[in-house]
Parts: sequence; C-alpha cells; structure tokens
Amino acid sequence: MPNIETIISPALFHLHEEDIEHKNVVVIDILRATTTICVAFANGAKEILPVSKPEDAAAMQQLGWIAAAERHGETVPGFDMGNSPQDYSAERVNGRKIALTTTNGTRALQMSKSARNVWVGSFLNMDAICKALLSDNHDILLFCAGWKDKFNLEDTIYAGALARKLSAQFIIEDDATLAAIDLYMAAENNMAGYLQKASHVNRFKSLHIESDLDICLKTNSTDILPVFTNGSIYPQNP
Amino acid sequence: MPNIETIISPALFHLHEEDIEHKNVVVIDILRATTTICVAFANGAKEILPVSKPEDAAAMQQLGWIAAAERHGETVPGFDMGNSPQDYSAERVNGRKIALTTTNGTRALQMSKSARNVWVGSFLNMDAICKALLSDNHDILLFCAGWKDKFNLEDTIYAGALARKLSAQFIIEDDATLAAIDLYMAAENNMAGYLQKASHVNRFKSLHIESDLDICLKTNSTDILPVFTNGSIYPQNP
Repeated sequence: MPNIETIISPALFHLHEEDIEHKNVVVIDILRATTTICVAFANGAKEILPVSKPEDAAAMQQLGWIAAAERHGETVPGFDMGNSPQDYSAERVNGRKIALTTTNGTRALQMSKSARNVWVGSFLNMDAICKALLSDNHDILLFCAGWKDKFNLEDTIYAGALARKLSAQFIIEDDATLAAIDLYMAAENNMAGYLQKASHVNRFKSLHIESDLDICLKTNSTDILPVFTNGSIYPQNP
Repeated sequence: MPNIETIISPALFHLHEEDIEHKNVVVIDILRATTTICVAFANGAKEILPVSKPEDAAAMQQLGWIAAAERHGETVPGFDMGNSPQDYSAERVNGRKIALTTTNGTRALQMSKSARNVWVGSFLNMDAICKALLSDNHDILLFCAGWKDKFNLEDTIYAGALARKLSAQFIIEDDATLAAIDLYMAAENNMAGYLQKASHVNRFKSLHIESDLDICLKTNSTDILPVFTNGSIYPQNP
C-alpha cells in the first residue's frame, strides 16, 4: 500500500525529496495561490505559467498574456491582477493565458517539478484531487507552501482533510500527516471560524482577505485538476 | 505582553533567530534527551556537558566523567550509557558529571546558546519551566528538537501543553503554537495512547522504549530547572 507524507514547510522539502520521481505531489497554498489557480481554470483560463519574478510576468504581457504578480499579499503596482481569486472572473480570464508570480505557491511548484505528477490542490477541487491520487495509487507528498518557510494552519488543515479522506487506501505513519489530520478534525465543524485565528488571516485583515477566505473554503465547487508539467499549469478535465 | 513562538523543527530555527538574546528558549526532546537530563539531575548528577561527537564524550571519560552516547536510539558500543532515562539511576549518577551526545537534543541546545536563557524542558519539570518563564517574563521560543529535522508529535504536544498553561500571560499568534495547543488538547486525556501512534514510538518499539515512554510522561515529578550556560547544563534548584 503506498503512503502519504506531509511537508509542513518548504524548508523541510529536502527530507522528502528521495524517489520523488515515483511520488505524486499536491501543492497547497490555500491563501491564496492554489485556490486562485483553481478559480482561474474554472472560469476558462487556458494555461497558467508560474514565474519567479514580476519582471518575468511582465515580459509575457508583451505576448498577449495576462500578467499577475503578488508580493506580501498585495498586487504589484503595474500588473493586471494579483493573487486574489476575486480578480479571476470569467470576463477577465476566459480563454486567456496567465503568467503568475506569488510569494510561496510558485516556489513550491518549482521545487516539485521532478515528481511523478504535480497537482494543484485547494478545497475547491478536493474530490478531483482525491480521485486522481486514488486512481494513480503511488506514494503521496502533500506539500504545504506555507508563508516564507513558516508553518501555517490553513495549508496543514487542507492536507489533513485530504489525508483523512485517503486513509483507508494509503499508509499514514509520519507525524506531520497524523498531526494534520487531528488539526483538521479540530477545525472541520467551523473551518472559517477556526482559520480566523490563523496568523495569515490576521496578516491580511487590512487587505480585505476575509471575502477571499469564503471563496477558499468552497469545497468541491469545481472538478478541474490543474497539472503542473513542463514548467506550466494546464487544466485537466475529468 | 511578551509572546510565545514554537519551532517545530531545527530546520526552521533560522526563522526565529532574530533578537534571540532577548528570548528564553525551552529545548524539548521528550523522547528522550531532555527527559533523561531531568532524571539525571533529579538523581543527583552535578553537571551534564552536551557534546557533538561520541569521541568528545569518550575524552571526558579519562577525566572521571560518565560518558553517555546515543545514536539512532541506541547506546553507542563502549559507552557507559545511552539516552534512556532508565540508565540514569541515583546509584550511577549521584554526584557525578556526565558528558552526553544525542542525535537531536544536543544539537538543539548548541543552536540556542545565544538566547537570554536556555532551559531544558520535559513533562517531568513542567511546572518548574512554567514558573521560570512567567517570572522572567520575556518572549519565549519553544524549540522542538524533532527527529533528524522532522516534525514530531511528542515534542510538539509538550510545547502545546506549556503554551496553553502560559496563554493568559503571553501573546500567542503564530500558527505553530496554535497548532501545538490544539494537538495537546486532542492528546491530553490519553497521552500515552496518543503517542503510541507517533512515528518515534514505532521506530523504537524494538528498543523497548515503551517503558521509557511512561517515565517521559511523569508530569511534575521534579522541580529542578536544568540551565544550559557556558556550554554545559547545571541543575537549578527552586
């Protein structure tokens, strides 16, 4: 039976890198990169290219792409949009390609590139992620993007929710995954309330992230599976 | 009001290093270094010198010290004792000085050396640790030694137990501490049972750590406060 491990910070990625070419990675950045990527594809975006620097996104603008850049939770001045899922309406993104740079999510995707599959996970496409993991049936790394290498509650709780759903079909022995499941169980009856105490939510209070939080918790609102392959993300339909 | 942060792996220590000279650090390695240090002092040991390599401990043996060395959970062949609290009876350690090297605990102590105070915490001296932290009233780092940089449940749960006791007198805003408290609350009614699922306990099943686990959970069995200062650990009596 394959197993599930959880990476609770990018700074611990190296402990799980061995044999990564045989593992499926779910990259998790609930507030907000991986949520926003799911929203963009649900609203018709064709491709999302994660880039390291705002300049790289700006360069793609010349080629007709939408350029999206977020730093420290805010849209970088001069860019079409930032990291808020509310920016990615069908009116703006349907049929478009987007170059995106974010504080944590982009980096976690790049770090995972050698994996068997790299999927973009959020509450919005939770069942689609589960289905893909079950059907491929290989070892799983749940990769929490965190906040500048710090552990965060919202990514860990999502990892716990996924691991719990998969616990009958996968071995779960590492303490990080066991902890994630218990934290999810402490949160599940009132996710929004629970996450109100998360440092990330507090950090963004001034940036009106509260309305983003509701979007981030819309479980199974899409069945699209975003796949990171050859350096870019494409929507895979069921 | 000062705050509490929790370092859930030595690999994340660098995120908390700033201003460490104004912070009190509690080094936590429940299975088993910090538990064993408390047992040794409770049984009359005079000093414990944490050293990096077994050779360094062996060198002290020439000077009449007890040499203790653990690697991968086992006593290194040729040494007086390893890392099990059961080795540190009054018969063996009373009035003695001990040079000790362990997989994770020694390293966490060395990393913390610039802090305002470095105290050695375990369930055995929990109230003594709380009293010291309350009376000194500075920012706190709860430093979980982990297992080869991996997150572990037992150290995190102890951090949560401490943080919860101190929550009225300290600000708790970082997600790692909030998570540690919730994990402690999930575990508190059946600590031994809860920790049975921890990877560390499973790792040591073959080494008879189960009997050590009972010792590790003997809350407030001593009021000694081990202090790491000038490179060595001394018992501070109340």
